[in-house]
Amino acid sequence: MTDSRRLHLNAFLLNVGHHEAAWRHADSDPSGVTDLRHFQELARTAERGRLDSVFLADGLALWNDVRHGAAGGLEPLTLLSALAAVTEHIGLIATVSTTYNEPFHLARKFASLDHLSGGRAGWNIVTSAGEAEAENFGRERPAHADRYARADEFLEVVKRLWDSWDDDAIVADRVAGHYADPAKIHPVNHQGGYFKVRGPLTSPRSPQGYPVLVQAGSSEDGKAFAARHAEAVFTAQQTLAEAQEFYADLKSRLAAHGREPYEVKVLPGISPIIGSTEAEARRLEHELSELIIPEYGIKQLSGIFGHDLSGYPLDGPLPDLPPVPDGQQSRVKLVTDLARRDSLTIRQLLGRLAGGRGHRVVVGTPEQIADQLQEWFGNGAADGFNIMPPLLPSGLTDFVDHVVPELQRRELFRTEYEGSTLRDHYGLPRPAARRLAVAS
Amino acid sequence: MTDSRRLHLNAFLLNVGHHEAAWRHADSDPSGVTDLRHFQELARTAERGRLDSVFLADGLALWNDVRHGAAGGLEPLTLLSALAAVTEHIGLIATVSTTYNEPFHLARKFASLDHLSGGRAGWNIVTSAGEAEAENFGRERPAHADRYARADEFLEVVKRLWDSWDDDAIVADRVAGHYADPAKIHPVNHQGGYFKVRGPLTSPRSPQGYPVLVQAGSSEDGKAFAARHAEAVFTAQQTLAEAQEFYADLKSRLAAHGREPYEVKVLPGISPIIGSTEAEARRLEHELSELIIPEYGIKQLSGIFGHDLSGYPLDGPLPDLPPVPDGQQSRVKLVTDLARRDSLTIRQLLGRLAGGRGHRVVVGTPEQIADQLQEWFGNGAADGFNIMPPLLPSGLTDFVDHVVPELQRRELFRTEYEGSTLRDHYGLPRPAARRLAVAS
Repeated sequence: MTDSRRLHLNAFLLNVGHHEAAWRHADSDPSGVTDLRHFQELARTAERGRLDSVFLADGLALWNDVRHGAAGGLEPLTLLSALAAVTEHIGLIATVSTTYNEPFHLARKFASLDHLSGGRAGWNIVTSAGEAEAENFGRERPAHADRYARADEFLEVVKRLWDSWDDDAIVADRVAGHYADPAKIHPVNHQGGYFKVRGPLTSPRSPQGYPVLVQAGSSEDGKAFAARHAEAVFTAQQTLAEAQEFYADLKSRLAAHGREPYEVKVLPGISPIIGSTEAEARRLEHELSELIIPEYGIKQLSGIFGHDLSGYPLDGPLPDLPPVPDGQQSRVKLVTDLARRDSLTIRQLLGRLAGGRGHRVVVGTPEQIADQLQEWFGNGAADGFNIMPPLLPSGLTDFVDHVVPELQRRELFRTEYEGSTLRDHYGLPRPAARRLAVAS
Repeated sequence: MTDSRRLHLNAFLLNVGHHEAAWRHADSDPSGVTDLRHFQELARTAERGRLDSVFLADGLALWNDVRHGAAGGLEPLTLLSALAAVTEHIGLIATVSTTYNEPFHLARKFASLDHLSGGRAGWNIVTSAGEAEAENFGRERPAHADRYARADEFLEVVKRLWDSWDDDAIVADRVAGHYADPAKIHPVNHQGGYFKVRGPLTSPRSPQGYPVLVQAGSSEDGKAFAARHAEAVFTAQQTLAEAQEFYADLKSRLAAHGREPYEVKVLPGISPIIGSTEAEARRLEHELSELIIPEYGIKQLSGIFGHDLSGYPLDGPLPDLPPVPDGQQSRVKLVTDLARRDSLTIRQLLGRLAGGRGHRVVVGTPEQIADQLQEWFGNGAADGFNIMPPLLPSGLTDFVDHVVPELQRRELFRTEYEGSTLRDHYGLPRPAARRLAVAS
């Protein structure tokens, strides 16, 4: 069940590119934000590159500065379902919140996506910290610990729903007239602090049993949650040392839950700015930097810190700021460390964040990018990467056409899909259906 | 905006056919129930026939007798999103409940489907009467009036969310760096008895503005709701006289809401059993009848009446039964009228219900089927039909290859799509975005 130490690559698809000014660049088409054909092309390109999956982030409120930044994309589950129909191999990872959803809805939607796609569904579990999201559901913003307690119970309920049909429940014996065996379909009868759910689910157990469970929070609660539930972790790390520390920390937490290190893939985000020469890559980086609108970056930064930064001089240092809001601590630490480490002015910090919102940006030739990936992969910092192309589709096409072949030459990446499900791509086991006593 | 009195045809897709024994018939493949390729073939066949739309029903609990009946299909929004990617013209109507959903989620999922499909989304609004559904969400079963009051407010909120971006909110001026005009994106600030929603929506206004709004309840509350909100009504009518009465009743209610008769299409369900000769059609009807399992039908009937009917002799009459549960009255009346009108035994009643669960079954040649449709369409009983093929895919293929051409010969049905959206197919206007004062 262990994979032979090949790295795992996801294509993180966001609007027309991860660079905040991507929509202003001549190589993008801003109308792609809501256009299925744009995402269909991206998914097919990623599949041509034999990537493990495409991944869509999500938020339940319009929080961007819409004047200066691309905003208003599609809902991930509907979009990925559409992409399931026009791809054959690639995994499909959707972000969905446990805080503003019902386990029954979520369980059946992911079971449905997993059936539709022949076992390619993944769920990036988020707990929605923001005030604006709470206000779209008439709710108070939940406390940090409360969000994770709800998420824990949510996971318990959805797993029981996914297990509520045995794998062999459908008989389809036409002669005898037996469609399914009722003894193999079980109510859930969950009754807990947050949820009361009778079950069973409305759909049979899906090809993967459960979608691949993904998590992205780097808070203490987030890491503890990941150690219990996650099979892949998306993380933002700027330096090899920090990435190694995060990697070792997370893997060390698994044994306490009876899990092996290979059962969780650690996948830092990385935004590769690719050129056929280093000069060409630097030129693209510069073009994008020239398109940055500082007011946009200041608004994003103010959002992260929960504090209005528009009054501070752009060419002065990042000031000391009051304690940060719940749910933003790890992002704030990452941004503050970045500014302090290189003594950046606010303007310089905005330039660094524009490419990947705190994720690592690497600039260079395909060989140089591959070197960077290999260094982290070979030194206990990553099992693979969440690829965040600065421009879409061109940045993904360049990655697939030039970086992937280089990784394949180095025998670091598959040349063909070896299985049919996302679990196969990740080298993860298919969970057996459990028959548990009622949790409460 | 009026259409030239052409009829409207939807393909109601259910498992491997609407006849309850369809899964036992040699012309079906029971594995189709959860197979995207099965539904993809059906949608493409319906599109080849220039039908207005495909339609998926839904329920939020596993209520079928799974031993004897096909059950466990996919969730409609995920399935229709997948079908959006492999079709170009046909409308996509998904059933979603207002009782167990949040307006914000529903508004963005339908906006997303409408963007994905280029304006082909429709929403069949249901209010989920069942006990089993309530138990999957830890809730008490809501009272009838309460369900409709919630649905009314739900519609108000989702319309305001769909209107929260003006049609021209996105500027995408790369040179000036203006992506969207914030003055054209509006919070909703809804605060009512059921919901509190700040808005705006996370996506721009979609091609149709709103998905086409469909309703299917025939209770007094259901008809009042339809008159206020629906643009298409699915209904079960057995006789021309009843259908005419329903049609006239519903259309007469529209003026009070400032609406014109053409703004609501009345579409009775019909299950056509088609043969190249009448004898061949009768043979297919007989084959399907032979596959009926009475225990299955008795369980369905017991569910409708909220009363266990398994103790009554199959060859005796339908007994007088106690008052029926909330949410089932119109279905009970339909079934009781059917039994009494023709003095049916329980076994005979089960045979009549097996084909269409109370919807009309017509048996004959393509010409005879076309005659039936034409009679209702030409006599104020229907604006079109919700086609419920007894077997899938064969029943839909037969309809498209043989009945549709006959209707086209009679100039009752389009030979080409004349527009690109579901609103175009139905001859319905695209709603303008409203800027309303806060409802409460």
